[in-house]
Amino acid sequence: MSDLRSPALHWQGDALALLDQRLLPAETHWHRYTDADGVAQAIRDMVVRGAPAIGIAAAYGIVLAARQLGDKASLEALRPAFATLAASRPTAVNLFWALDRMRDTAQGQGVGQGETLIRQLDTTARSIHLDDQAMNQRLADFGVALLPEGGTIYTHCNTGALATGGHGTALGVIRSAWAAGRIRGVIAGETRPWLQGSRLTSWELMQDHIPVTLVVDSAAGHLMQRGQVQAVIVGADRITANGDTANKIGTYSLAVLARHHGLPFIVAAPCSTIDPARADGQSIEIEERDGGEVRRVREQQLAPHEVPVANPAFDVTPAGLISAIVTEHGVIHAPDTDKMAAHLRHAERMAHDTNTV
Amino acid sequence: MSDLRSPALHWQGDALALLDQRLLPAETHWHRYTDADGVAQAIRDMVVRGAPAIGIAAAYGIVLAARQLGDKASLEALRPAFATLAASRPTAVNLFWALDRMRDTAQGQGVGQGETLIRQLDTTARSIHLDDQAMNQRLADFGVALLPEGGTIYTHCNTGALATGGHGTALGVIRSAWAAGRIRGVIAGETRPWLQGSRLTSWELMQDHIPVTLVVDSAAGHLMQRGQVQAVIVGADRITANGDTANKIGTYSLAVLARHHGLPFIVAAPCSTIDPARADGQSIEIEERDGGEVRRVREQQLAPHEVPVANPAFDVTPAGLISAIVTEHGVIHAPDTDKMAAHLRHAERMAHDTNTV
Repeated sequence: MSDLRSPALHWQGDALALLDQRLLPAETHWHRYTDADGVAQAIRDMVVRGAPAIGIAAAYGIVLAARQLGDKASLEALRPAFATLAASRPTAVNLFWALDRMRDTAQGQGVGQGETLIRQLDTTARSIHLDDQAMNQRLADFGVALLPEGGTIYTHCNTGALATGGHGTALGVIRSAWAAGRIRGVIAGETRPWLQGSRLTSWELMQDHIPVTLVVDSAAGHLMQRGQVQAVIVGADRITANGDTANKIGTYSLAVLARHHGLPFIVAAPCSTIDPARADGQSIEIEERDGGEVRRVREQQLAPHEVPVANPAFDVTPAGLISAIVTEHGVIHAPDTDKMAAHLRHAERMAHDTNTV
Repeated sequence: MSDLRSPALHWQGDALALLDQRLLPAETHWHRYTDADGVAQAIRDMVVRGAPAIGIAAAYGIVLAARQLGDKASLEALRPAFATLAASRPTAVNLFWALDRMRDTAQGQGVGQGETLIRQLDTTARSIHLDDQAMNQRLADFGVALLPEGGTIYTHCNTGALATGGHGTALGVIRSAWAAGRIRGVIAGETRPWLQGSRLTSWELMQDHIPVTLVVDSAAGHLMQRGQVQAVIVGADRITANGDTANKIGTYSLAVLARHHGLPFIVAAPCSTIDPARADGQSIEIEERDGGEVRRVREQQLAPHEVPVANPAFDVTPAGLISAIVTEHGVIHAPDTDKMAAHLRHAERMAHDTNTV
C-alpha cells in the first residue's frame, strides 16, 4: 500500500516516521520507528504530541507490533503492545479511542490472525489517520462562524497540522477563518513549559502567512483588558459527558480570564475527544510531568537544580466557562450533559448514515 | 564612610557594585560602576531590577556623577545624570521618587557645590538605602496578619532581598510570616519572560529554607481551583491615587483568578511606590521590552527568529481586585481614593513625628 503523509507523521507501511517536535523550529528531524515500544517512547517523550496525532501514532504502533509478530499476530499476542501504548500518556482520550478501534478490528469477525490481521489493522490505522484530516476540515467549517468578525483570536498550545492528521482543530478553525477573510490575526501564548505556542503554533502560522503575535502566557489578561483579544479558541485532550474539558495547562486560567472580560471561549475537538463514560472533569487523571521541564529549557538551566516543581501537564475547564464546543458534527453552545448527549447521538446517526450509504 | 551592603547592591563610597541578576542562580557575578551612565545601563539591562532596588541604584548613580564632577558638582551640572537615570526604565515610580529626593538634597539650603554637595548626596543615597531595609521590616510586620493561617501563598516575580535594600516587600511579608510559623509554604510562579520566580525567588527562599514549589505562570488557575493556594501576594512598581497597581506582567491575570476563587489578593509596597499625582492606572506608561526576551532564553532560541512579539513588562490591576495594600505605615483594606489619601496623610504625619523627635 502507498505511503500516507501528514506534516508530523509519515506512515511508510513498514515503519512510522515522526517529525521530532522537540527540535522545532530550529531543526527538522524525522525519526523512524519499527516497533510499538519505540512509538510508545516517542509519545511519552513528546517527539509527537497533540491528542489526535498521539491517537494516530498509537494506531500505527499496533500495526508495527503485528508486523513484528508476523504469522503469530493475534489479539492475544498484541496485548503487551496495547498495554504499552495505553500507558504512554494518561490524559488524552483519543489515544484510548484509537486503541479501542484497533482492538475492535482485531476482534472483528473473519479477521483471524497473521497476514490477514496485519492487513486489517493497517487499513484501520490509515482510516483513523485519513478520517482525522477530513474531520478537521469539517470541524473548521462549523467553527468559523464562532469567531467574531474582524477579531484577533488568542490561542494556546498547538492544535494545528502538527498536532493532528492535518489542518488542525482550534488552529484549523483559525486557518479556515483567515482563508475566509473573517479574522484579523492571531495571538499565540508561548505555552510554558513546552513552548508549543512559540515553537510550533507561531511557526505553522508564519508558514501559512497568517499574522501572529507571540506573547508570554501571563500577558493574556492584560491583552484582554486592553481590548486586544476578541475570542479565545483552544483544543482539548478529553471532554467529559457534561462538557468539562481537560486541555494543556493554562487553558483553565484563560477560560476564567475570558469570562471576566466577556469574551467567547471556544473549544475545538473531534468527537473522539469526548469521553461519555465520565460524568464530569473532577476525576480526570492529570499527568504530572518531570520538574526538569520547568527548571530547564533544553540544556539551559533556569532555576536551582534542587527546587521542588509542580508540573501538571493539563487542567480542567468546567463546562460553565465554555461558550461553545465545536466538533466535526457541529456546535454545542453553552455545553451541558443533555446537549452533549444529543450531540453524540447526532454524531452516531451521521456515522451510521455514512456507513450504510 | 563605611561600605553599605545588601544582597544585590554594595555601595563602596567611590563605586556601586551590583550583583548581575541576569546570571542567577547559575553564577554569582558582581559588576562595579563608577559613573551614572553605567548605572543607567545596568538598570535598563536588568543587571539590577525590582522597583526599590532600582531607586537605590539610581540614587547612588547621582552620587557617582557628582564625584566625577568633583569641584564642579552642582545641581545644574548634574542635570544630564538625572535625565539619563530617569530614562532608564519608565514604569517603576520609586526610581523617580529616589531621584526627587536626590534633587531635593542638591537644592537644599546650604548644600552648595563640590565636596559639600557630594557628601550630602552620599548621605541621602545611603539613607534611601537604609530606610528601604527598615521600611521592608515594618511593612512585613504589618503584612503577616493578612496571610491566612496555615496557608500556601502564591507569589509572582521577585520582591525579595534582591529587589530591595533587603528583606523584601511581598517576599518580606512571606519571610516574616514563615518565621512566625504562620504559613505552610510558598508557590512561586516562574514569571516569564525574565524568570524572576525561577531564578531569584526560588533561590532566595531555598537559601532561607522556606518551602517553595516552582510552577509555570499558567498553572496558577489550576492550583487555585484545586485548593492548593490560600492567598496571592505581589509587589508593585507604581500605585496610583485610587489604588490601581502597575506590577510585573501577569499580576493582573493573578488578580482576576484570585477574585474568581475568592482568595485574598495582597499588594505589598513601600509608600514611595504610591504616585498620588496620578488619579488611576489607565494612563500609566507600560514599558514594552524587546521581543528577543520572549523568543530566546539566553542563547537558546525558542521561536522563529522573525516572529512578531508583544512583550509588555507590566500590567495594571484595578484597585477593585485588590483585597489589601500593605505599606510600611499599615494596611489599606479594599483600597480606594479616599483610603489611599488618608493613608498617605497618616504616613506624612509619621514621617514628620519621626523627624521632629
